[in-house]
Amino acid sequence: MQLNKTLSELAHYLHAELKGDGACIISGIAPLHSAKNGDIAFLDNPRYRKYLSTTEASAVIVSSAFSEKCVSNALIVEDPYYAYAKVAELFDRAPKPKSGIHPTALIAPDAQIASSASIGPYAVIESGVVIGSGAVIGAHCAIGENVHIGENTRLWSHVTVYYDVTIGNRVNIHSGVVIGADGFGIANHKGKWLKVPQLGSVLIADDVDIGANTTIDRGAITNTIIGEGVKLDNQIQIGHNVEIGAHTAIAGCVGIAGSTKIGKYCLIGGGSCIAGHLEIADKVVITGMSGISSSLTESGMYSSGVNVQLTSLWRRNVARFHQLDDMAKRILILEKLVKNTEINE
Amino acid sequence: MQLNKTLSELAHYLHAELKGDGACIISGIAPLHSAKNGDIAFLDNPRYRKYLSTTEASAVIVSSAFSEKCVSNALIVEDPYYAYAKVAELFDRAPKPKSGIHPTALIAPDAQIASSASIGPYAVIESGVVIGSGAVIGAHCAIGENVHIGENTRLWSHVTVYYDVTIGNRVNIHSGVVIGADGFGIANHKGKWLKVPQLGSVLIADDVDIGANTTIDRGAITNTIIGEGVKLDNQIQIGHNVEIGAHTAIAGCVGIAGSTKIGKYCLIGGGSCIAGHLEIADKVVITGMSGISSSLTESGMYSSGVNVQLTSLWRRNVARFHQLDDMAKRILILEKLVKNTEINE
Amino acid sequence: MQLNKTLSELAHYLHAELKGDGACIISGIAPLHSAKNGDIAFLDNPRYRKYLSTTEASAVIVSSAFSEKCVSNALIVEDPYYAYAKVAELFDRAPKPKSGIHPTALIAPDAQIASSASIGPYAVIESGVVIGSGAVIGAHCAIGENVHIGENTRLWSHVTVYYDVTIGNRVNIHSGVVIGADGFGIANHKGKWLKVPQLGSVLIADDVDIGANTTIDRGAITNTIIGEGVKLDNQIQIGHNVEIGAHTAIAGCVGIAGSTKIGKYCLIGGGSCIAGHLEIADKVVITGMSGISSSLTESGMYSSGVNVQLTSLWRRNVARFHQLDDMAKRILILEKLVKNTEINE
Repeated sequence: MQLNKTLSELAHYLHAELKGDGACIISGIAPLHSAKNGDIAFLDNPRYRKYLSTTEASAVIVSSAFSEKCVSNALIVEDPYYAYAKVAELFDRAPKPKSGIHPTALIAPDAQIASSASIGPYAVIESGVVIGSGAVIGAHCAIGENVHIGENTRLWSHVTVYYDVTIGNRVNIHSGVVIGADGFGIANHKGKWLKVPQLGSVLIADDVDIGANTTIDRGAITNTIIGEGVKLDNQIQIGHNVEIGAHTAIAGCVGIAGSTKIGKYCLIGGGSCIAGHLEIADKVVITGMSGISSSLTESGMYSSGVNVQLTSLWRRNVARFHQLDDMAKRILILEKLVKNTEINE
Repeated sequence: MQLNKTLSELAHYLHAELKGDGACIISGIAPLHSAKNGDIAFLDNPRYRKYLSTTEASAVIVSSAFSEKCVSNALIVEDPYYAYAKVAELFDRAPKPKSGIHPTALIAPDAQIASSASIGPYAVIESGVVIGSGAVIGAHCAIGENVHIGENTRLWSHVTVYYDVTIGNRVNIHSGVVIGADGFGIANHKGKWLKVPQLGSVLIADDVDIGANTTIDRGAITNTIIGEGVKLDNQIQIGHNVEIGAHTAIAGCVGIAGSTKIGKYCLIGGGSCIAGHLEIADKVVITGMSGISSSLTESGMYSSGVNVQLTSLWRRNVARFHQLDDMAKRILILEKLVKNTEINE
Repeated sequence: MQLNKTLSELAHYLHAELKGDGACIISGIAPLHSAKNGDIAFLDNPRYRKYLSTTEASAVIVSSAFSEKCVSNALIVEDPYYAYAKVAELFDRAPKPKSGIHPTALIAPDAQIASSASIGPYAVIESGVVIGSGAVIGAHCAIGENVHIGENTRLWSHVTVYYDVTIGNRVNIHSGVVIGADGFGIANHKGKWLKVPQLGSVLIADDVDIGANTTIDRGAITNTIIGEGVKLDNQIQIGHNVEIGAHTAIAGCVGIAGSTKIGKYCLIGGGSCIAGHLEIADKVVITGMSGISSSLTESGMYSSGVNVQLTSLWRRNVARFHQLDDMAKRILILEKLVKNTEINE
């Protein structure tokens, strides 16, 4: 986490308006409340604006609305979080493996590996695989037959990709991800289950991110499809033949059952579950821990999560929940009785 | 996905009634709405029956109830989804590794590996392991001491099986699965937790399927038991000493806490959580995202999932939920008052 | 599971009061209801006390309150579950790998591995790693640049630790765990997502347990922190910059979103989800499948899980839930009307 740039250089890099000392040296990056001399910080979430007047940061990335309140130098931008992300790229220490194939990697003779790609130790790459230029395949990855992996795509260690899967360019896949395992297709016959072979595959478009231990199943007949620029957090489960529209972002622990189609530019909160065979429109926002059991045909924000109460109170309320239909009917009766009473009077 | 069979051959294979041209060549398989000439399709879910009159498929697998509406050749069967599954087996392209031990696999000297088994690259097989005929152990699998794996069982790559686990015949285990890790046993002593050694193991019966990244913990004293023909989807968590009855199917992201016993022929919907020390009867159906915190002693269908609403409406409703007991009491008071009023009149 | 100790020896080991035959030989351990001659059992959960009068165990670990009802020899202790855990340690058969580096492990030249540590087959250990005495790194583990792993810490097979992570002493990490993958930081810019580099890391204190396939993300600027003695079950997702206080225990399938701080000595039930940027006080207990979307500033027990009903009843009740605000308003109107009626009379 070491840098050595002047604030002027950073202002130029961000196309930001500079307020204060452009010759000031920025060597670190830190949260607003704990930043020290030499650090750059940023303000995006207004709940932290109180720290603008006390921060020890050498400079703060801030919107014009808050720049007046900032005691330090400032870089004034339209979108401070985006600008922060651009500066954070300068501080990124994530190791970048060198090009070349580690001697312990097992590569099928007919696999096509770009010379600028990096294949890590103990990776296993099966027949017919194509790996694009600048791609990184981490240690212990298992890449099945006929998988295509695009340019500058990175698989961290311990990623499993089953046969026939296609992955685009600049895709980032974290450890423990499994792509292309069988969808959950089972046919009941006289009480026993017959596994239904999963004949489709998975298509992952460009610029997708996939978090650790997320699973994306292969399609039953046609493909499971993850659209361009989709961002998936950790431990998400995506069933067979799901389609996710471009630029949708999904937080951790979400489950999406088979054949559901999710639109573009959606935001899906953590812990939510979406039933199968539904259609979710573009620009739908779903708050955390919601259940979705019917299609959502209009954009908008939807919820069904319930916040906790003290258990002693909750128990009484939840008991009433199980009587809710009865309560509703009793209200109706009361309304009739009271109405009659009024009429009588 | 290439085949070359006449429709008569497929009718014979399925014991189906043939309607139309038995000499028609079937070379592909596709969904009803996108099938082309040469493809076979099927109709199971009635919501897709509208496509029967427009499909370009060369043949459709269909029940007698819908065969009249089908514009193409038809294979008439009692259970179209089951028949489809049988046909899909003919199209299955999943790679089948050859028998033999990959030179990079590490096999303990006393492990017993059937000669027809296949052990993939970088697999690690510890002392005392027994692997049956026709079994496939994928790349990077780690098989602990004294594990027994039955005949024709397949572990895809990156499966971890801890010591002493027993797995039956024809079991199919997807990547990222962990079987036999310690159950969550902790004893509190003066505010600190002491780990309780998990002395049991895991028994998995024949014909079980286990989806990617599912975890099945070893028992505390006795064993965790997965019954014959059980089908588990991805990212399921099964706690120590759980027992799952034969032919039960569980969808993705379900969590089952320790010592719970689930009956036979149950269906458990995705995202549901089942508390510990419960008994679930045979033939219980639980819909998606339900919570189960008491035993279910009768077969039947149970739910507690709540579908989303627009957040603006939801917030008002959920606020009232937290007052539900109060509302119920106020209804009771109203009923008394109204009754008294009536009497007074 | 073989032992050969007299009951007197066990009484001495546990500082227990012995009731009965101290010369009795204990060779096995079993649940109270299925224990046989030679076995020791224990009673902790009072629901099993009925077995005290019928158990065939040679001895039972029991509190003084129940010792009278026990037909067998007894070891009387204050905390039977804790005492059981201590006895279970004597029966623990978990394999303990020998010290030394497996010839297939790949160790960066500058990594510092204690001579008493054990590094398993196909482990990959990058530059700058430090591994303490007595530590065990299982087969196929991938340990990134500059990771520090403390003394007597155990990673089972298939654990992934990203660069710069620090792990304390006596930590136990099960297979499939991923520590230090990128937090879910994305900045929206004109409809597209820019990945925000995650510059922090993960600190795991001493005596932490981490269950199979759990994921702990690295911090955005500062670190994600798991406190001393924290116990995490399987398939838990911990977002970037989360802090978990010492001695908190979290059951399976819990998701904790970014920047949330959880206190010490908390208990969090399985399947619960906690939103981001919250503060949870010390000694908070959250029951299973709860949603937490606001800070909990007081210790206490909290819930929002809803138990199942028969689906036929549930559907009626849940439909009313979506009308709850309307119902509440109608009650208020009724109350006014009835009050007016009373006044009129």
